[in-house]
Amino acid sequence: MTNPSPEISPAPSVREPTREGVLRAAAKMAALLPTTPLLPLELPDGGTVWCKTECLQPVGAFKIRGAWHRLTDMSEAERARGVVAVSSGNHAQGVAWAAHRLGIAATIVMPADAPAVKLAETRRLGAEVVLYERLTQSRDAIAAEICVAEGRVLVHAYGDPWVIEGQGSAGIELAGQMDCFASGSPTRIVTPCGGGGLASGLALACPEAEIVPVEPEGWDDVTRSLAGGAIVGIGANPPPTACDALQTMATFPINFAVMSARGMRGVAVSEAEVRCAQVYAFARLRLVVEPGGAAALAAVLAGKVPVDGRTALILSGGNVDPAAFARVIADA
Amino acid sequence: MTNPSPEISPAPSVREPTREGVLRAAAKMAALLPTTPLLPLELPDGGTVWCKTECLQPVGAFKIRGAWHRLTDMSEAERARGVVAVSSGNHAQGVAWAAHRLGIAATIVMPADAPAVKLAETRRLGAEVVLYERLTQSRDAIAAEICVAEGRVLVHAYGDPWVIEGQGSAGIELAGQMDCFASGSPTRIVTPCGGGGLASGLALACPEAEIVPVEPEGWDDVTRSLAGGAIVGIGANPPPTACDALQTMATFPINFAVMSARGMRGVAVSEAEVRCAQVYAFARLRLVVEPGGAAALAAVLAGKVPVDGRTALILSGGNVDPAAFARVIADA
Repeated sequence: MTNPSPEISPAPSVREPTREGVLRAAAKMAALLPTTPLLPLELPDGGTVWCKTECLQPVGAFKIRGAWHRLTDMSEAERARGVVAVSSGNHAQGVAWAAHRLGIAATIVMPADAPAVKLAETRRLGAEVVLYERLTQSRDAIAAEICVAEGRVLVHAYGDPWVIEGQGSAGIELAGQMDCFASGSPTRIVTPCGGGGLASGLALACPEAEIVPVEPEGWDDVTRSLAGGAIVGIGANPPPTACDALQTMATFPINFAVMSARGMRGVAVSEAEVRCAQVYAFARLRLVVEPGGAAALAAVLAGKVPVDGRTALILSGGNVDPAAFARVIADA
Repeated sequence: MTNPSPEISPAPSVREPTREGVLRAAAKMAALLPTTPLLPLELPDGGTVWCKTECLQPVGAFKIRGAWHRLTDMSEAERARGVVAVSSGNHAQGVAWAAHRLGIAATIVMPADAPAVKLAETRRLGAEVVLYERLTQSRDAIAAEICVAEGRVLVHAYGDPWVIEGQGSAGIELAGQMDCFASGSPTRIVTPCGGGGLASGLALACPEAEIVPVEPEGWDDVTRSLAGGAIVGIGANPPPTACDALQTMATFPINFAVMSARGMRGVAVSEAEVRCAQVYAFARLRLVVEPGGAAALAAVLAGKVPVDGRTALILSGGNVDPAAFARVIADA
């Protein structure tokens, strides 16, 4: 396993994420917020796929789950010192939302080219935002510096057992909703994949289901890592992608261990396939889905993942600048 | 009460809509489809309003409710002859969806200038579409002709007791969801209003709540009818409006009777206020809401309706042409 430079490891005292932790996170979420709907979506060929609409979370993304599970498990002393997170925007908002609600100080390290809507919302939720340059600065190094200087807890976007368990709570809900509406557990869950926090959480949540992580072309490090049996990072000069939420340099051992143990195989989608999926969700579900949030639907619509009556997918986020979204749907 | 020309009356054997009918419709809907979510929405001033997301129905609008209640109550002989409806698109899709599912032939009379997405979806659902010119032809006369010639049942978009009861089922769900999430029944429900089918249904569903119908400026015939104590139609040369779903010439006595008995008072919103509401729903709820579907939110955001912690509003539909929606959010 190669070192996933330039990202750094989370806190050294890391524990393994567990299914019990996922169930505990799911119980916390049930007490906190309404369950996000699971909507049936008819595909062009007549099949149906079940869509878990995480874009309807209060911060517009599933990231609220991991952040809430992590922050509510912090000690009083830890809460008093505050948290630090690195994120292009969805994890940022999830941590900011949870921190605001719990009265914890939050500093978020965000790329200077993050969508304006994500920067604005993170600040609106009361967090302090520190900007960095995506291609020349290490966001994790900046975060580590703040953590050390101020004694704060790092809430990593995916390489953290609580975060993995928290994201997995979406799978517990989804399985219950499938039982209710689709007469059985999901056979397969297709999910957008950045660092692998959600994919590994879903794997713990739904031990019987096939989990399919979907990445943008050129940013498919998880797919290549799973195929090769060891963590590899993205290549030099990765192509531009609209999927800002999925632009991670490499997965972490804590995520890779869960994903590879399950024999997961990833899928990559093109930018055009992602735009098609955004337009389809707009027209058929009346949902605003951001590019990265539409990656799983893109893979299904492109026929890259088979669909039976009990296949589900995650619409993981809906935070997109109005002008960018307008361009996508106007060109459809 | 003046005769609401140029619209015609529904079938002569009309009965009164009842709360029992609303409860029966709600039971049918609970067995048919997942409940649409009730989402909390933070307002710019910090208050919270509860949004019933009817734009997330399979046809993108609440109209599926009244159509389902009406068609499932038809006799075998009536089903064999088929149904006729008049609609700019949402009622059309509701009737087409229900008819398709029940194996009933459906002909829908639609304005030639209806949004392309609504025409296409109605046809995709298997209905026959008959076009008419909105300002020069009477849609109801065309529908009546087909009904007489083919012995079909007219499913009026709002002037029908089953349709009123069916739309009211949204209020039964909403009240249950408010009890669960907002610790009490709704004190006030703000709703987009065309002919008054939804407003009168909500009144029957929620006898304790204030119901506030919202119309586009210049199409506020229900507001003026309620203020004057008698049905009046829209004036000559009404202004253009993006709210195609709310362009009705006059309410019907069956709707007016329920609304005026409750002492309802209507509100009118401008086109700019409607666009603001669409943008707000896009950014904060990640929902695609059509202009008419955003009218109630427009009234709340414009401060035209007061909000307490138990005020709810209906986001009634999300069927909007991509180019039109792109223009609204790109200009924001």
